[in-house]
Amino acid sequence: MKVAVFRKEHFNAAHRLYNPNWSDKENDQVFGKCNNPNWHGHNYELVVRLIGNPDPDTGYVYDMKKLSDIIREEVLIRFDHKNLNLDVPEFKNLNPTAENIAIVVYNLLRKRINDDLDLKVTLYETERNFVEYPAG
Amino acid sequence: MKVAVFRKEHFNAAHRLYNPNWSDKENDQVFGKCNNPNWHGHNYELVVRLIGNPDPDTGYVYDMKKLSDIIREEVLIRFDHKNLNLDVPEFKNLNPTAENIAIVVYNLLRKRINDDLDLKVTLYETERNFVEYPAG
Amino acid sequence: MKVAVFRKEHFNAAHRLYNPNWSDKENDQVFGKCNNPNWHGHNYELVVRLIGNPDPDTGYVYDMKKLSDIIREEVLIRFDHKNLNLDVPEFKNLNPTAENIAIVVYNLLRKRINDDLDLKVTLYETERNFVEYPAG
Amino acid sequence: MKVAVFRKEHFNAAHRLYNPNWSDKENDQVFGKCNNPNWHGHNYELVVRLIGNPDPDTGYVYDMKKLSDIIREEVLIRFDHKNLNLDVPEFKNLNPTAENIAIVVYNLLRKRINDDLDLKVTLYETERNFVEYPAG
Amino acid sequence: MKVAVFRKEHFNAAHRLYNPNWSDKENDQVFGKCNNPNWHGHNYELVVRLIGNPDPDTGYVYDMKKLSDIIREEVLIRFDHKNLNLDVPEFKNLNPTAENIAIVVYNLLRKRINDDLDLKVTLYETERNFVEYPAG
Amino acid sequence: MKVAVFRKEHFNAAHRLYNPNWSDKENDQVFGKCNNPNWHGHNYELVVRLIGNPDPDTGYVYDMKKLSDIIREEVLIRFDHKNLNLDVPEFKNLNPTAENIAIVVYNLLRKRINDDLDLKVTLYETERNFVEYPAG
Repeated sequence: MKVAVFRKEHFNAAHRLYNPNWSDKENDQVFGKCNNPNWHGHNYELVVRLIGNPDPDTGYVYDMKKLSDIIREEVLIRFDHKNLNLDVPEFKNLNPTAENIAIVVYNLLRKRINDDLDLKVTLYETERNFVEYPAG
Repeated sequence: MKVAVFRKEHFNAAHRLYNPNWSDKENDQVFGKCNNPNWHGHNYELVVRLIGNPDPDTGYVYDMKKLSDIIREEVLIRFDHKNLNLDVPEFKNLNPTAENIAIVVYNLLRKRINDDLDLKVTLYETERNFVEYPAG
Repeated sequence: MKVAVFRKEHFNAAHRLYNPNWSDKENDQVFGKCNNPNWHGHNYELVVRLIGNPDPDTGYVYDMKKLSDIIREEVLIRFDHKNLNLDVPEFKNLNPTAENIAIVVYNLLRKRINDDLDLKVTLYETERNFVEYPAG
Repeated sequence: MKVAVFRKEHFNAAHRLYNPNWSDKENDQVFGKCNNPNWHGHNYELVVRLIGNPDPDTGYVYDMKKLSDIIREEVLIRFDHKNLNLDVPEFKNLNPTAENIAIVVYNLLRKRINDDLDLKVTLYETERNFVEYPAG
Repeated sequence: MKVAVFRKEHFNAAHRLYNPNWSDKENDQVFGKCNNPNWHGHNYELVVRLIGNPDPDTGYVYDMKKLSDIIREEVLIRFDHKNLNLDVPEFKNLNPTAENIAIVVYNLLRKRINDDLDLKVTLYETERNFVEYPAG
Repeated sequence: MKVAVFRKEHFNAAHRLYNPNWSDKENDQVFGKCNNPNWHGHNYELVVRLIGNPDPDTGYVYDMKKLSDIIREEVLIRFDHKNLNLDVPEFKNLNPTAENIAIVVYNLLRKRINDDLDLKVTLYETERNFVEYPAG
């Protein structure tokens, strides 16, 4: 049986939800006040989970300091105090919903984490709305 | 790989735990102070999880506003500021333990959520006691 | 300059808000769903603050274990898993609003805490509604 | 002795901190990443405190539903899912620091709350940075 | 479909992370300030999850009071206000990382919980670092 | 009217509560399990409050980054991942109760914060036990 380890980080960002192929009316109907063209923002809480076997020499599945460094290098430096739509290339043509942010974060981290470790990302947009990728 | 989305809501309710087929003494032994015939109550926190694929046009697995509306219509209007035993028909012959409340909530929501979306309910009775249905 | 020490405890209770001298219609207008005659309930969080000088021998303003015992004896045993209106004599003729509960708790504790210690009570009815007595 | 009552609400907004009379370099030195010209954002938590005497007929210092309505009408409708700098006239010539947001919120609410009630505003910009106005 | 029930408890303990087969320099490189020979400590939050079928007579998967008693007897009495390295025999030759503490807690509880109930342990060392065993 | 600004930081430390002039029996009676000679520990949460007037050019009472730096330099570097009794000179002859830690933190910070700013320290030893200095 394996052990899961979790590291929680946070970032603050602005975003706007809309589909550029839709009319303003359609965007308002679907995205409501999240479609404010002047942006709004959130304190995002990010939890990264790795699953593996504890190293017998250290008792660690993964060094949490190293995981924190990777999250900072891959995610926080790019996302924190940014406008996700304007400042983060991955969202140039991708709506920055919590779902899509979690998928982008997963892909950024996956390439830095060895494949024998299972990876999951949980992203809190607010205390009441959050997402998990991959699910389950 | 799919994405899970979560919506958190809350309601405040009174209840009493007991088995009407048992003696007072048996009920006290099993349910202790939760068997107060004059009721007691809780601030219940409810988290609803759906798993699916993000819609390519919206980036949403599910519109959280719509999910919030369904939870309000199916659960909050019936449970909030109510006596679960007296005011909610589902608990007329069912002990309103956190386990049974979660199952009832699941069944109320399941019929409103399309079957291609996986559904799970987490219910916090207190910060220290909570349940999940279905498990795992 | 003095030091304040705080102890947090909790209890779960049922209650109903209404004025017996008013009509049902008046009670519904003022108290809304809090006026459910079948009761509803809350997880109350209680924070008790004492202000004094640390004892030079112990470094304590007050022994938190002793304060916890006093809160249990005076408040939790009487309020926890109770119906405040029916089971607690202090609310026989007093509406159990958060304001009035805080005043009753203060009076119960005041007689057990030496007068040279300043006493304040904060009571959370929900995460979003709370009260403090005395104010300020 | 009076009672304090508290109501907690929240809003999500974008903002940018800068002084238009300063050079970019000066703004970067003082405001750092908060000076991102493309904005960033926060989940603001707002706690409003009123101090008064409980009404003997209701046991309320103030009806929390009414206070919640006033906060929504005066603050949330104007601030929630907005860009504070662009969408809120009060910040046209005022830097939207947490300090200044709290003062603006206080002034908006003060005119709606009777003068015999003491008013205070606490604003959480993040879990780690928050302000209170008036202080103490 | 089964139901999961969760019980949250806590304990405060001191510990030191190091490998006695390594030099001081190696230990400092891997464990950093967690290798302080004079110890440091944490408020550990422990969540225990059981999965089973609700008993038709009680509506309980498990009596939370009984689970709380077992956690106290097996874990809290041994770990709370202790030095994990010096006072807890299980860590005499096992580095008390969060991963290893979770495994030890699981093994202590597993022998007290009937095998037809699935068991999982989540341990929070800090709000930002936590582990789960078994994973997933 | 002035504005209060708050900054929250944390540190993890080991300590032991006892009076070296007392017998073991007296120490056990007063300090109970906090008197474990092998130490125990906590995740301390520290909130620092300053009161002043917002600078008209910045809208800041105080730069939170600067306050965070001062807390790190004066408190975290000395206290985090340390044994308060053994590693921190201020507690060589002073029992490291929450009350005394708060007073020591206040004195360390006071000399770095200009006198025209009011200073207060709140220290959480656990979620249920916390202190404030100066009180009120």
